[in-house]
This record gives sequence, structure tokens and C-alpha cells, in this order.
Amino acid sequence: MAGSPAGQEIERLIQLLAKLPGLGPRSARRAALALLKKREALLEPLADALAKAAAALKQCSNCGNLDTADPCVLCRDPERPNGIICVVEDVADLWALERAAVFRGRYHVLGGALSALDGVTPERLNLPKLLERVKAGATEVILAMNATVEGQTTAHYLLDALEPLGVKITRLAHGVPVGGELDYLDEGTLSAAFKARRAF
Amino acid sequence: MAGSPAGQEIERLIQLLAKLPGLGPRSARRAALALLKKREALLEPLADALAKAAAALKQCSNCGNLDTADPCVLCRDPERPNGIICVVEDVADLWALERAAVFRGRYHVLGGALSALDGVTPERLNLPKLLERVKAGATEVILAMNATVEGQTTAHYLLDALEPLGVKITRLAHGVPVGGELDYLDEGTLSAAFKARRAF
Repeated sequence: MAGSPAGQEIERLIQLLAKLPGLGPRSARRAALALLKKREALLEPLADALAKAAAALKQCSNCGNLDTADPCVLCRDPERPNGIICVVEDVADLWALERAAVFRGRYHVLGGALSALDGVTPERLNLPKLLERVKAGATEVILAMNATVEGQTTAHYLLDALEPLGVKITRLAHGVPVGGELDYLDEGTLSAAFKARRAF
Repeated sequence: MAGSPAGQEIERLIQLLAKLPGLGPRSARRAALALLKKREALLEPLADALAKAAAALKQCSNCGNLDTADPCVLCRDPERPNGIICVVEDVADLWALERAAVFRGRYHVLGGALSALDGVTPERLNLPKLLERVKAGATEVILAMNATVEGQTTAHYLLDALEPLGVKITRLAHGVPVGGELDYLDEGTLSAAFKARRAF
């Protein structure tokens, strides 16, 4: 390129926006331009929201969720029953389950999944707090790991760790995703859906 | 939804991110999560870059480009010849031409195109400064408007305003876009490409 059409500060903004998931170099440029053109409606509020989030961001010491308060909004909610803990790998998984609005208990965020390749050992996961919470009085632990090799390895590891505590342990069902076409599904999913078939 | 999995500040951040072009509600959520998880590498630098851009952002009083300095980086560039002015509708168009690196003269940003529907009259465009710049000594004005009804209306309006000044006025060529397949092109483009055909 023969030179930048905008100053260094704006180029830096574009570079940072391009690091966001879902934005490439071209869309980051469009996003930056939208920000610059809507200075009062978008640029200044977003700068403010980011600064506030950066200043206030905390990891919940109870469940590992990211929030601006500790304990987080879910751990504080008095309307959620305490007995059932849904264990997820990541905050993104927690948010996805909350979007689906299927679960009204408490969560526990592991902060990853066991992976020999990525060097994620049990020590690097948020496990001691989970065991502590289960001992303090959980009736059921739902292992909501991803259906990946790492997720399932982690689920089996947790099963071994939790079984001695005498708590009920469940996992999410495998099967055909709603709206999914059999023709496009992998053999593993089809096989799992077949084995878990139920009376109509 | 049964309640937000994150606090109010984070929801506000997601709402603002969703206003960026190219980000919908779901990808804004993913982007927010990426920001929260990469606090030092992404969240804080982006907050900082936005605040700096908001504080320093200026519209170039010469050409209308957005930059952190006035005159902008392009108007200040001593290596660009002054005689040729490329007129564009919007800052985005200026950036697109700079990306293509085809033009090394000066620009003039109109800030829109004439549109009866949207109530954009000649008074709302950055015209007086253009006439002033042309009178001060331009040899050629390139009308690089969009090939839309509004863009071409604006180009004709500018032609009428600039012709009395005795400057050479040119416009971008219409034709088959590079990589374009004839089968997918509209009749207008095909007709323009045919009329402007050249010897091989």
C-alpha cells in the first residue's frame, strides 16, 4: 500500500478491531469507519463501555464466570436452586446455555478442557473449588462438556473425581441436532442418536 | 431469556458491539467474550485506542477526510502532487482508493451524494471548499462517485459547477469488473462495457 489514508491512531484502532472474532481486516476497517463517523452515538459510548468493563471485570471466585461483580450475577441470584451444578469448559458455554434458558441451577466454569497436546493438565483447571462446592451440598452435577475428545476426556476425569462423593452425575444427551439433516451428520452423531433412540 | 448471564456493564458492551457493521447480536457476544478473556492483550488496548481516537478525531478542513490531525495525513503529504483532485462521496471511498493504491494526488470528500429521497441537497455537501480548491489551481478533477443514481446525479451537478472554471473533468470508467463473469453482470454494466470497448 502506498501509505495509510488515516493517521497512526486510526490504523492502530483498525488493527485491534481486526483481532475480534468475526472481523477480518476489511470488516475491521468498515467498523472503524462506522465508529469514527458516529462519534457521539457509537465511538464514545463504546470507549466508555470498554473502559468500564476493563476496570470492573472480575472472575467469580465461586463459579469462574466473568462478570463485573464477585460473586457473579448468577451465583448471587436468590431464585436459582443451589443443589444442581452444571459444569462447563468455558464462559462461552455458560452464556450459550443461558441463551437457551434450559437450566436454572448454578454453574461451574472449568476454564478449559484436559488436553495433552495443549498442555492442559488437571492442575490448570478450576477443579478444587468444584469439589468443595459439591461437598458443601450438591445433589446433581451435570457434565456439560463439549462433545470433543478433550471435552469427553475431561468429563471422564471429572466422573472419577466426583463419584467417591456420592453425588448424582449426568451428562448432556448426544443425538441429531434440532433442524439437522441426517445426510449431513457424521457417523459418530448418527451412531449415538441410534443407540439412544426412544419410544415415540 | 431467563436473565442475563453477565452484569449490566457487559450487556451494554455487547449491545454497542452489535451496532458495528458486520457484527450481529451473536457475533457481538463472541467478540465481547474475546475482549473479556483477553483483558490485557485486547480489551485494555482497544479501550485506549477508542478513547484516543475519540479525543483526537478531526475532520480535515481542507479535504473532509477523517484523521487525528488537521490537515489530514494525505493533505500534508509533500510527495503528492497538488494539481489533481479526486472527488469522492465518502471517507470509505477514499480509503478504498488508497487501498488500491492507484492515485497519488489529493482528495476531496463531499460527505454524501445528492438525494431527493434522503433530503441531501447541494447545501449539505462540502462543495464551497471544493470550488475554492479548484480555483486555487487544479489542473484536473476526477469525479469518483459511486455508479448509483445518487452518485451520477451528484457527478452531473459537479460537472455543471466546475465547467465554468475551465478545469479538466474526468470520471472513472464503467465496465466489467476484474474477475467478473458476464453471465452475472447487469445489463447496464454490459452496455457500458460494450460502448467503451477498446482495440486489443
